[in-house]
Amino acid sequence: MYIVPEAMIADLVSREASFEAVEQVFAAMAAKDAYNFPVVREAIGHEDALYGFKGGFDRVGGALGLKAGGYWPHNLEKRGLINHQSTVFLFDPDTGKVRAMVGGNLLTALRTAAASSVSIKHLARADARVMGMVGAGHQATFQLRAALEQRPFEKVIGWNYHPEMLPNIEKVANEAGVPFEAVDLPGMAEADVIISITSAFAPSLMADHVSPGTHLACMGTDTKGKQEVESALLARAKVFTDEVAQSVSIGEAQHAVAAGLIAESDVTEIGAVINGTHPGRTSGDDITLFDGTGVGLQDLAVASKVVDLAIERGVAIEVDF
Amino acid sequence: MYIVPEAMIADLVSREASFEAVEQVFAAMAAKDAYNFPVVREAIGHEDALYGFKGGFDRVGGALGLKAGGYWPHNLEKRGLINHQSTVFLFDPDTGKVRAMVGGNLLTALRTAAASSVSIKHLARADARVMGMVGAGHQATFQLRAALEQRPFEKVIGWNYHPEMLPNIEKVANEAGVPFEAVDLPGMAEADVIISITSAFAPSLMADHVSPGTHLACMGTDTKGKQEVESALLARAKVFTDEVAQSVSIGEAQHAVAAGLIAESDVTEIGAVINGTHPGRTSGDDITLFDGTGVGLQDLAVASKVVDLAIERGVAIEVDF
Repeated sequence: MYIVPEAMIADLVSREASFEAVEQVFAAMAAKDAYNFPVVREAIGHEDALYGFKGGFDRVGGALGLKAGGYWPHNLEKRGLINHQSTVFLFDPDTGKVRAMVGGNLLTALRTAAASSVSIKHLARADARVMGMVGAGHQATFQLRAALEQRPFEKVIGWNYHPEMLPNIEKVANEAGVPFEAVDLPGMAEADVIISITSAFAPSLMADHVSPGTHLACMGTDTKGKQEVESALLARAKVFTDEVAQSVSIGEAQHAVAAGLIAESDVTEIGAVINGTHPGRTSGDDITLFDGTGVGLQDLAVASKVVDLAIERGVAIEVDF
Repeated sequence: MYIVPEAMIADLVSREASFEAVEQVFAAMAAKDAYNFPVVREAIGHEDALYGFKGGFDRVGGALGLKAGGYWPHNLEKRGLINHQSTVFLFDPDTGKVRAMVGGNLLTALRTAAASSVSIKHLARADARVMGMVGAGHQATFQLRAALEQRPFEKVIGWNYHPEMLPNIEKVANEAGVPFEAVDLPGMAEADVIISITSAFAPSLMADHVSPGTHLACMGTDTKGKQEVESALLARAKVFTDEVAQSVSIGEAQHAVAAGLIAESDVTEIGAVINGTHPGRTSGDDITLFDGTGVGLQDLAVASKVVDLAIERGVAIEVDF
């Protein structure tokens, strides 16, 4: 079996490769060729940690396995380690033998950024020029970097609850040669595409802050109780997601569904748009909203690509297991 | 992190070490110091395989992680590989970083055999002398070998649906210096301890085949629908298990509970007997029955011991991950 340690990932996997892997697996999910297993997520009662497994099988891509790990909130402060820790394990679907172990930390950031990018490619207007960011943490930098490759954006506007963090994303915008401007939330009305990537438990972005024709990617809500945008916005939007079951239970759509503003049947897998079985955006005035909840198959797809690349370049560590 | 490949396991782990690890973790479970996560088990629609994850956390033993793998029914015939394939992954509970990867095939046999042995130690009569085996497959050899260490048995009797397999267990008995005799099912009445280890979907051993004072370890039923012994036997016995929730849903007790012959509250965690909070057997005439369903914590406990031993002996493969 092969091992690809965390430290190798940055050199191996490009944003383009992650994008392609995630786009393919979303398409496979909608075509019922790939599915995610029930998620295990446990508060283990030690170090305030959340730990669990996100598994799945993509019978077209041949990826079987899981991402294991979670959130250790005191890692950074106590040990200088990052708080999110995860590892991906791939299995050979023909035999059940373990095929590879891959560092999952950078992969998680890349696959999450790839998901919002896939949604921008397939749902944003072709003439989108102003990119809006709600959130400016570490994850936001990955999101913005990937998003800027999807349209010829001319300006990035950003808001964060802690404005002192905005330079994080300003730097990314400037590196891409795009000017940056800090705005208040009503100022988001200027954006053609908005990515929200916060870990809030109350909405920041209200329906009135969003103009017709905007595409939103809500990437921060992956737990019961979290919320980034006003529920009324989902009622006004065409809502897409990676996995409907997660969207309506732990994703951004949970609140609009609970309030009866939208039904589960109003939420569409983005893979259907990729496959051409759903039209997606049909008017320049549509508000489209992608609820990115994060599924194990994204991790497996990108990890699988990483392993192939590591073998191809002769850097994968081979262990007789 | 450390890697202990499958091929190293046999030299590293003894039956005594497995026994100790499993006894400790059963005790920790009953004391609420260790718990198993929800089991993921999926028919993946490829190679007729069943694949999944059994995870848990033992905060006393410090073991966190999962066993991943499953059953690939065509492995042997198609590829000369064993059909049950599994791998154990251990994580550092303080940081969430992966600590070790351990081959899980032999471990599974050892931890399963250890479970029935623990039940014999704590529930069989001290003067038990006749050991009965229902089942004579590969797993049965591990079961018998471990069981013979728990009492000074003077005879092994065995039954198998395919009698031509009985030499498997006769060999084990003879290696331990104990005579073996093939019997029919009513002949099991002579046994003081009976282990059933089959994968049957209808009972072989009936209540009338079992004498007062016998201890039974039913080790084969781990799925809805499987059954090794007549439900009436559970109504007549004091019933113990590794984990009550599994026992009444996918273990041997599922049928007696469904039929209303016993209640969930009649099933006791064996850890309570180990901890001395439940008296276990209180009379030489009690029939005691251990429903061994198999929990992830058993795998983690034995794998943890294996990793410690491999490090101690300098044979663990260390990878900078």
